Amino acid sequence: MNALTPPASVEIVEVAPRDGFQSIATPLPTADKRRCIEALLDAGVTRLEIGSFVRPKAIPQMADTGELIAAFADRPGLRLSALVPNLRGAELALDHGIREVVYVVSVSESHNRSNVRRGVDESLADLGRVIARLRQSEGTRLRLDLGTSFDCPFEGTIGWEQVDRVLGEALALAGDLPLEVALCDTTGRASPYQVAEHFTRLGERHAGPGLDWAFHGHDTFGMGVANALFAVHHGATAVDSACAGLGGCPFAPGATGNTATEDLLYALQGGGVATGIDLPRLLAAADLIAALPGGQTASHLRQVPRDRLG
Amino acid sequence: MNALTPPASVEIVEVAPRDGFQSIATPLPTADKRRCIEALLDAGVTRLEIGSFVRPKAIPQMADTGELIAAFADRPGLRLSALVPNLRGAELALDHGIREVVYVVSVSESHNRSNVRRGVDESLADLGRVIARLRQSEGTRLRLDLGTSFDCPFEGTIGWEQVDRVLGEALALAGDLPLEVALCDTTGRASPYQVAEHFTRLGERHAGPGLDWAFHGHDTFGMGVANALFAVHHGATAVDSACAGLGGCPFAPGATGNTATEDLLYALQGGGVATGIDLPRLLAAADLIAALPGGQTASHLRQVPRDRLG
Repeated sequence: MNALTPPASVEIVEVAPRDGFQSIATPLPTADKRRCIEALLDAGVTRLEIGSFVRPKAIPQMADTGELIAAFADRPGLRLSALVPNLRGAELALDHGIREVVYVVSVSESHNRSNVRRGVDESLADLGRVIARLRQSEGTRLRLDLGTSFDCPFEGTIGWEQVDRVLGEALALAGDLPLEVALCDTTGRASPYQVAEHFTRLGERHAGPGLDWAFHGHDTFGMGVANALFAVHHGATAVDSACAGLGGCPFAPGATGNTATEDLLYALQGGGVATGIDLPRLLAAADLIAALPGGQTASHLRQVPRDRLG
Repeated sequence: MNALTPPASVEIVEVAPRDGFQSIATPLPTADKRRCIEALLDAGVTRLEIGSFVRPKAIPQMADTGELIAAFADRPGLRLSALVPNLRGAELALDHGIREVVYVVSVSESHNRSNVRRGVDESLADLGRVIARLRQSEGTRLRLDLGTSFDCPFEGTIGWEQVDRVLGEALALAGDLPLEVALCDTTGRASPYQVAEHFTRLGERHAGPGLDWAFHGHDTFGMGVANALFAVHHGATAVDSACAGLGGCPFAPGATGNTATEDLLYALQGGGVATGIDLPRLLAAADLIAALPGGQTASHLRQVPRDRLG
């Protein structure tokens, strides 16, 4: 890792509409969500996790995901994705026009059961069916979110070998299907050195064309920006973050906000890393999001006087 | 920078008693300060910036520095330091038994004038006199705090060449006197890549025996932990931080808390980096500090449920 030669570019995947909005107890009006997403696109966001296809009873905040996709699917240059926990969700996502399916499985058995109500093996079996389904639709992509890749709220620290077991099975299922694998620090408890180790070890074992790496982190322990940078310097080409630092996991006790997109952007800009996102406009979007009912945020940059950001 | 081989150890310099306590508007009772310092020593802190010798009219919060030194100077294994802005302060510090004098000069002319009421050249001339005085007292050390080494609240971004000019003159004055140079991100506006660049460029130009490097940072922009780690991976062997994330600079508008020692410690521990500090005991000290009147803090780890820190 040579910090004097940062990567030329990093893809920021904006997850406020999914991980963020689902963390607000009372579901937001769809019109409010649209306004915020519009502001994010104005800022230059090109990858957006717009929602999820889960049981509305379990996560009512995501019930309008289809409606949001319809509103934004035709924007040129916008790469939309939606999270799904199973084949049924993947089919709904494709039916609603989603071309990039984010399939989530946790590395730890207990978090997978808490999060998607079944065992890791069942999730992997269903992943095989999702992959078969995606192979039938040209131009679709798969992203695999490996939840609790560093820490589980129930089982504690997760070693890279544990991630490797689940990842190995998933990669065997995927075969030559292009894939982005996200190592997710669901609880924010990962340290930068653990992040570096997991990306390095797993990257060594599974390098290959058609396999990209991403990092998803939370700032609960104050490691958000450092973890993201260590990921980027050890193989990740994409990083998830949520504008205004909104977020959490309803099934991971104690997890708070995602790393704020504006904090991450500030760090990357300092190295001349291109992201396509404009900081002042992103902060305008962050202000909108922070003003939502329930929109408590964990952004650092929003606290800085604006005239100091130039 | 290879994050898979972190340094074996890093010296954490606890600055809550100086940078932290001076940021609380109403001066704290000396007894409260003593209680907090005792808790910090219980946690394993071995380097402590205990206060400063400045005009009590300008910073009344530091008026009891001599009393605090008397209370803790005889602790075995404790490396005490005190900040001074001029020769008069250095003489007072030595008279009170301080063996490590922290001499502060800002790289930017306007911040130096705001902070210590004189130009950089005057500060450097006085540094020459301080060095002459230190040469007369065996066993004394000099630490040079280069304020605004990355950003000035009045002048904006500071390039490494500007730091180099001031540093070069200081090193010429110091000659063979052992010296620790701290690049100080007074406002918290430095990015990790800027930190890496300054340490690398200045380290290349001024490597040598008897010259150590340190980093002093604030978390105002959310870069605190990342900046500290990038410093450590590019030459810093010591890092300043303040327990509970207390701090600011009374003469740097908009600057908020120092990077919290507990956040930094958590990041370093994740790489097996030895610091000698015990996290649970440090959090006990952070609780004490946060409970002080005016002790608003910016610590992340204090917000995490304690049973998640194991």
